[in-house]
Amino acid sequence: MTNFPAPIEELIDEFSRLPGIGKKTAQRLAFFVVKDKKDSAIRLSEAIINVKNRIHFCEDCFNITDKDKCSICSNASRDRSVICVVEDSKDVIAIEKTREFKGLYHVLHGAISPMDGIGPEDIKLRELIIRIRDNEVNELILATNPTIEGEATSMYISKLLSQTDILVTRLAHGIPVGGDLEFADEVTLSKALEGRRKI
Amino acid sequence: MTNFPAPIEELIDEFSRLPGIGKKTAQRLAFFVVKDKKDSAIRLSEAIINVKNRIHFCEDCFNITDKDKCSICSNASRDRSVICVVEDSKDVIAIEKTREFKGLYHVLHGAISPMDGIGPEDIKLRELIIRIRDNEVNELILATNPTIEGEATSMYISKLLSQTDILVTRLAHGIPVGGDLEFADEVTLSKALEGRRKI
Repeated sequence: MTNFPAPIEELIDEFSRLPGIGKKTAQRLAFFVVKDKKDSAIRLSEAIINVKNRIHFCEDCFNITDKDKCSICSNASRDRSVICVVEDSKDVIAIEKTREFKGLYHVLHGAISPMDGIGPEDIKLRELIIRIRDNEVNELILATNPTIEGEATSMYISKLLSQTDILVTRLAHGIPVGGDLEFADEVTLSKALEGRRKI
Repeated sequence: MTNFPAPIEELIDEFSRLPGIGKKTAQRLAFFVVKDKKDSAIRLSEAIINVKNRIHFCEDCFNITDKDKCSICSNASRDRSVICVVEDSKDVIAIEKTREFKGLYHVLHGAISPMDGIGPEDIKLRELIIRIRDNEVNELILATNPTIEGEATSMYISKLLSQTDILVTRLAHGIPVGGDLEFADEVTLSKALEGRRKI
């Protein structure tokens, strides 16, 4: 026997599939589960299933939610004339933490990236255009990541809307270029919101 | 909303409990699960439960197994007169990989550590003594870790058995093969000198 019993090997394989988890870490995690209290392990197992069963996209903004509409879209006090476009649900949390933004969001779930074969039709872009067409939107704040893909996505959207009278703005630089939006600190994000400019 | 929906927060909390997984990594893992295919997530969830339901200790050596006896104890070709004592099931795998050892194992599941409040009665030591008493054992190889706790445990066991005629041996200390002499610590080098053999 140079292998672990089958159930442990299977769990190691499953943990290895997670991002940033190599074989050795997966082994360590699996053995933690082996030694963990049974009800703790059951809680972890159920938390995974719960996320799959209860989390889906908000029908308006495609943010993740456990309801039909997310807590932001269903909040009557939010300014429905401003939409902040982000790549990811985690970016919504980051911007919400600044307490500066009172509008709504639109989560693209990705960015245009020809290198990875991700085109405009692979992200929630058509849904954004329909949403703008069917609602009274005055301003669109493009808050995609300051990466090549994020910039390309913002350029693409601003060009799409260049013939409309919607004000299209981009988060100000202040966000370190090449950085990831979700890791930006609140002050930097606040400054970036405050200094947004028409593009 | 500055938090994620409840099911995601719960999963982040559960992942954070795992060793070496901080808040940010837990978040990244939780979002991987959100975006993962449903059947993959179910496989992970079930693998965790399977480990808890199917893995237990071998009734002889306390190695982990999904049967009554582990594959080593139930292998008739192993030499039942030699028992190698290790702290952990992972150590069994490490020694098995050498293909040098043909005896049986005994997994203590820990080491004596007064600092952490772990005494001889907290590890599978009484079970080892009973096992030696009830079986024909000629040699006990102490393969606990070369740490203070591991050494203390080995010392304790060797003293317990000093009145018997069982040969008690300890794994040799020395320079790791492939290692570089200049990086070896002083204690290891001392042990290597002390244990030098005629070639």
